[in-house]
Amino acid sequence: MKVRFDRIARIQAAMRERGWIAIVILNHDDYRYLFGTDRTQPRALIPFQGPPELIAFTGEEPELRASLAEGKVRVFGSVGGQIHDVVGRLREIAAAAPAAWASDGRFKVGLQMWFGTPAFLVDLFRQVNPEVEVVSSDPVMDPLRTIKEADELALMTEAQRIAGLGMDRARELLRPGATAHQIATEATYAMMRAGAEGTSTPIYVNFGVETCMLHGRLSPEPVEPGQLALIDLTPQVDGYCANLARTFVVGEPDARQAELIATYREIVVAVRAGMRPGVTTSDLDGMAKGVCVAHGFGDYQVYGIGHGIGLRFEEPPASTIIPPHKNLPLAEGMTVTIGHPVLAIPGFGGVRFEDVYRVGASGPEILFDYPIEPIIPA
Amino acid sequence: MKVRFDRIARIQAAMRERGWIAIVILNHDDYRYLFGTDRTQPRALIPFQGPPELIAFTGEEPELRASLAEGKVRVFGSVGGQIHDVVGRLREIAAAAPAAWASDGRFKVGLQMWFGTPAFLVDLFRQVNPEVEVVSSDPVMDPLRTIKEADELALMTEAQRIAGLGMDRARELLRPGATAHQIATEATYAMMRAGAEGTSTPIYVNFGVETCMLHGRLSPEPVEPGQLALIDLTPQVDGYCANLARTFVVGEPDARQAELIATYREIVVAVRAGMRPGVTTSDLDGMAKGVCVAHGFGDYQVYGIGHGIGLRFEEPPASTIIPPHKNLPLAEGMTVTIGHPVLAIPGFGGVRFEDVYRVGASGPEILFDYPIEPIIPA
Repeated sequence: MKVRFDRIARIQAAMRERGWIAIVILNHDDYRYLFGTDRTQPRALIPFQGPPELIAFTGEEPELRASLAEGKVRVFGSVGGQIHDVVGRLREIAAAAPAAWASDGRFKVGLQMWFGTPAFLVDLFRQVNPEVEVVSSDPVMDPLRTIKEADELALMTEAQRIAGLGMDRARELLRPGATAHQIATEATYAMMRAGAEGTSTPIYVNFGVETCMLHGRLSPEPVEPGQLALIDLTPQVDGYCANLARTFVVGEPDARQAELIATYREIVVAVRAGMRPGVTTSDLDGMAKGVCVAHGFGDYQVYGIGHGIGLRFEEPPASTIIPPHKNLPLAEGMTVTIGHPVLAIPGFGGVRFEDVYRVGASGPEILFDYPIEPIIPA
Repeated sequence: MKVRFDRIARIQAAMRERGWIAIVILNHDDYRYLFGTDRTQPRALIPFQGPPELIAFTGEEPELRASLAEGKVRVFGSVGGQIHDVVGRLREIAAAAPAAWASDGRFKVGLQMWFGTPAFLVDLFRQVNPEVEVVSSDPVMDPLRTIKEADELALMTEAQRIAGLGMDRARELLRPGATAHQIATEATYAMMRAGAEGTSTPIYVNFGVETCMLHGRLSPEPVEPGQLALIDLTPQVDGYCANLARTFVVGEPDARQAELIATYREIVVAVRAGMRPGVTTSDLDGMAKGVCVAHGFGDYQVYGIGHGIGLRFEEPPASTIIPPHKNLPLAEGMTVTIGHPVLAIPGFGGVRFEDVYRVGASGPEILFDYPIEPIIPA
């Protein structure tokens, strides 16, 4: 384990500024970010001061201790059960905190509330810690997490490169009669062999009218000549997520398919030209809108042209999940996709081309430049 | 889509008995159970009476409608946004409900709160529906979901068979120098080629002291001769989960390894002999305890020898997640694993053998009888 004491210190400083007594980590992504590794039920407690604490099950403790820099991290296995250990520790931490931090006698504790945090765990946490006010840890974590360091960018670039290998394999197999499951199987294999741990979301392979679905999982019927085929790959490397979506037509596209493809290409160009620090995803949607309207597709535009990405498949600005995020200004060093929503004619089919970019001072820097070549000769 | 109107009718009857106005489905597993298919952001509303309702994004609506039995399912795409559509519908449903169902003016709505339900979504739901009391949907869903029908058992058996193919492949590769990532890659490929959609959890491949971890993900270093190797596979077929764990030693086990292996084999025999309707997982843990104590491993026993399994990788009785579940009596037709917790000597290594069983009237029926052959000749 490469514990990132630098990041932990910044988080503790941000907690003290806000008067929070602790952040409790129940998520893979924050755990990886702070402890440089992962385990299945990651549990840690970052008090507002002092060493971070890992919460282990009996039997896991020696192995965790062995992997840690001595003395700087506390590990405690379950005696009365993890839940009660945490309750007890939070009481001790609260006792050492400035009384002024409490409001109505309750101290604030940050929890991540994202997809990886099950609702029942938060409910249970609230129930057993009545003297604690649970707050979202986002305001402390996001300012650090959204701005990617060099080592993070390297892993994300590698993940995106691996997504490209998966897409190469998928494209190779995309011939009339191929099934979505075959393509997903072979693309997964190609990506794992190249070093991916797996994927952050299921692989999406959709044919024909199913390309209208925002994310349609795997189409049940084999691909037919002339159908749109939409493939979205999300391999992970050391927890860092890639996101590469391409749309293909096996054979010659018809007029509407060609128009959708041409429009989406223009959307990507327009949004790339406008992406820079200070701009919001709502602004980017505005740029996409101009293109959609010009092509007569104004009614079909789905908002949320880009979203943040990193150790989570969707991070702030998570414009398609948390509506207020559409007004978050981009900052230099953020990693953001362009090409998230499908542009679909209902009942017909849809198109998208999605890549990951770093927000650079003067514009977007694509992590891995995978070609957009939608037409597969029949 | 094969909408299961029979299941929906039973759920509606159970809701009316409890005076709930609706269940809102945000989960893959409930969605599959009721609508016979899956999509990435499954959203449905089951009112206490009348047709079930699917909530779609713009553009998805025609495709969803096309796949539905006409007239019996309502579909609505986002106009004011999904959230507001749901708020509006719940108000309409409440207006048609018996006033006596409300307490303090609030009507009850069931939500699943399991791992697949993100905490922020439940918080958001509560925030926008202040006139609704959110309750866990478990009391309505569990009685149906835990008792498996014949088609469900067939899919679970197929998933377990596929897990066996993955384990065959893993065992084949388990030679000194093999990496956990290689084994996971090849086992995943073998299972997907055989029809698995993917896995319900990451694949766990752990070597040496890392076999102590309850679930250790992938060991970073290659396997060495004489090390314990623990492999846990969880392929899914049509959403139904398998769970097959085996422990191996490459070469001749030493005395402690042999003793752990012999003990776990005895645990499995003892628990199989005792599993029947009416027994709780706490009772099963008691049977395992006898074996552990007899071998001098009493201090190392981790409770939760079995857990329910189905469309979720852990279902009621979810003895290792929800402590009160350890006192739920098993019923005929439930599907439950035996062999969940690792029996580990801290700092040394651990062993487990896990399979899935149907609780039969007179004892457990193993879904797929995969051999326990822990010694791999070096």
